[in-house]
Amino acid sequence: MFLESKSTEGFVDLAAVKALTFDVFGTVVDYRSSIVAEGRRLSAAHGLDVNWGELADAWRAECRPSMDRAMRDASSWVNVDAIYRAVLDELLKRYGIAGLSEHEKVQFNLVWHHLRPWGDSVPGLERLRARYILATLSNGNVRLLVDMARHARLPWDLVLSSEMARAYKPDPRAYRMALDLLDLRAEEVMMVAAHQYDLRAAQHLGFRTAFVMRPLEHGPHAVPDLTADDSFDVVATDIVDLARQLDL
Amino acid sequence: MFLESKSTEGFVDLAAVKALTFDVFGTVVDYRSSIVAEGRRLSAAHGLDVNWGELADAWRAECRPSMDRAMRDASSWVNVDAIYRAVLDELLKRYGIAGLSEHEKVQFNLVWHHLRPWGDSVPGLERLRARYILATLSNGNVRLLVDMARHARLPWDLVLSSEMARAYKPDPRAYRMALDLLDLRAEEVMMVAAHQYDLRAAQHLGFRTAFVMRPLEHGPHAVPDLTADDSFDVVATDIVDLARQLDL
Repeated sequence: MFLESKSTEGFVDLAAVKALTFDVFGTVVDYRSSIVAEGRRLSAAHGLDVNWGELADAWRAECRPSMDRAMRDASSWVNVDAIYRAVLDELLKRYGIAGLSEHEKVQFNLVWHHLRPWGDSVPGLERLRARYILATLSNGNVRLLVDMARHARLPWDLVLSSEMARAYKPDPRAYRMALDLLDLRAEEVMMVAAHQYDLRAAQHLGFRTAFVMRPLEHGPHAVPDLTADDSFDVVATDIVDLARQLDL
Repeated sequence: MFLESKSTEGFVDLAAVKALTFDVFGTVVDYRSSIVAEGRRLSAAHGLDVNWGELADAWRAECRPSMDRAMRDASSWVNVDAIYRAVLDELLKRYGIAGLSEHEKVQFNLVWHHLRPWGDSVPGLERLRARYILATLSNGNVRLLVDMARHARLPWDLVLSSEMARAYKPDPRAYRMALDLLDLRAEEVMMVAAHQYDLRAAQHLGFRTAFVMRPLEHGPHAVPDLTADDSFDVVATDIVDLARQLDL
């Protein structure tokens, strides 16, 4: 039967899965091309010559230290809206981008609220929703995820964010918060992500895992690591393929 | 312009409102008739003679002391699934309802996950969603609200529950949690409820308020207090009327 999948322990029964929790940035939406498109509009308006793809990669990558700092103690929490803005200000300096008004900076930072979904995301989610509770489990803050879902018509049943646990993935508190609020055991939840570290953290707590390949996450010239760990329960080329493999 | 509404201070500008937070039990769904329908199925199966409407009223009303106890300290939290079950066991004894299997009790308790929406709820919410972020702000636990939304096709952008704040309404922590996660100021959020105590608690923090009349919440023979406090920003006969008054 299709609802069995090879894992390191042999065949895993996926029939118990009741909810899918999704990583969002990179897995469901294409942040890089969304940022490049927005950057090009700024280039046109201000006569800027910027490698927006490179800036997008840096914007994403350089947030991690701030996320780790945000978890130091109860009073140090900041959400990703604030982190993105701080990193943006740094990048504008580094790239010599001058002349943007405060309003334009605020708007540019909001690009993360309006990222484009990959072409397979909405049709794939719609199919999966017929059987599974669909939830985000993202480091994006709640308002960002809500704005994005409204804009891109992502059919989430539930928005779950690291913000609710005050702990950024891959901190186990984020995944445990999801199990707690879904009122499910780990083996009843499948984490879906394009990033192996995210899946491994979920797997460590007993989640089922689905690896979705996103070869273009880091742009057309990147050579991403798409080798799927043999221990992932499902390896899918995209979210429609995931639905197909789950017989939906 | 319609987006002004009389309040005690005069005319309040509702144009700043970006999100609506909804009470759910009684305001969006009709728990009483849903429970009566489920109870009648049990009567037919077991030859029971029970006033299910009265039982439904008691089931709802007698949960409050347990909610208050759940907030005593950090370790005493229990969600409403557990509270409903404890009250149900008490009521089964009181009404002399014997012979239900554990499976039947579990299923009966799950009636709260599958409550019927009032007829205006889904069309009204669909209209309101065109302009506003729609969120629950309910004492129901997250999983209950998700199951209900999937079952009744309630188009929430966001499920917010007292469970996330570990504080049941009308405790101010529940409303503050909503503002925090929505990243909005109180005057940008309108609380929608059929219960005055809920609206007053929100209003106290600066929320806008909409009172929705639900004359049948406590059954056809009840005489509910439908007098709307003059300080509520909107008073609506149902959720479609609320949309109409907000020009949607």
